[in-house]
Amino acid sequence: MIHPFDDTYFMKRALQEAQMAYDKNEVPIGAVIVMNDQIIARAHNLTETLNDVTAHAEMQAFTAAADFLGGKYLKECTLYVTLEPCQMCAGASYWTQIGRIVYGASEEKRGFLAMKTTLHPKTKVIGGVLKEESAKLLTRFFIEKRNLN
Amino acid sequence: MIHPFDDTYFMKRALQEAQMAYDKNEVPIGAVIVMNDQIIARAHNLTETLNDVTAHAEMQAFTAAADFLGGKYLKECTLYVTLEPCQMCAGASYWTQIGRIVYGASEEKRGFLAMKTTLHPKTKVIGGVLKEESAKLLTRFFIEKRNLN
Repeated sequence: MIHPFDDTYFMKRALQEAQMAYDKNEVPIGAVIVMNDQIIARAHNLTETLNDVTAHAEMQAFTAAADFLGGKYLKECTLYVTLEPCQMCAGASYWTQIGRIVYGASEEKRGFLAMKTTLHPKTKVIGGVLKEESAKLLTRFFIEKRNLN
Repeated sequence: MIHPFDDTYFMKRALQEAQMAYDKNEVPIGAVIVMNDQIIARAHNLTETLNDVTAHAEMQAFTAAADFLGGKYLKECTLYVTLEPCQMCAGASYWTQIGRIVYGASEEKRGFLAMKTTLHPKTKVIGGVLKEESAKLLTRFFIEKRNLN
């Protein structure tokens, strides 16, 4: 029997969030947080709308997930995010003690891997899930931005 | 003529914020953000009250300062914070492009220096301002916590 709720399934939900950011003229990055095959938080980048550089998809998703659970820690949860988290978001994930991070496209310049951010020792990481779809949306956004300026 | 608005003056304001956190049974860390000798944001750690590990004093102060200024970047601002920022908060400061970070006590285990978090290249850092006062409040908090458990 095929398990319908795999990493690709949830990354598609994160990509839907990224599309919502795109539609608002935000850098298109989306995230969902999942526990027991249930989405408990969804968010997309809102740095322009909220005029706040800390309003990354992941940060909002962490806050929303903790609010939903009524507990600060996300040990049993997985974060799905369309782009490799930055050092701020990876640093936040450290405090949440999140169980797993699954990301799409790599961020080779400002991602947490290049920045050598320390994750929580119990956090597992998987990269590259639907990376082409994620990167395509980001590239489209930045090309359109450049053509407007 | 003595300039009354020096780093010690503003760190005292950050310590007042830390005291407010202490009074709420929060880990006592406080922050203010200053531009042109004016405090434009003040915040203290609210991780327990808000049930949110991202609710560090610095994160809230960044958001409040950007909201006050109506612009995302804090290039002309100084963050005063009673404890050396963690990698999440230092990572956030990277995005704000803040001009200066002045901190009190060192955080030798989870501070951004030990964690090797990359700051924005234009951010200047000064540590150790009123470090004894800051450390004293933190130590008092943790000793009291331990005695209660």
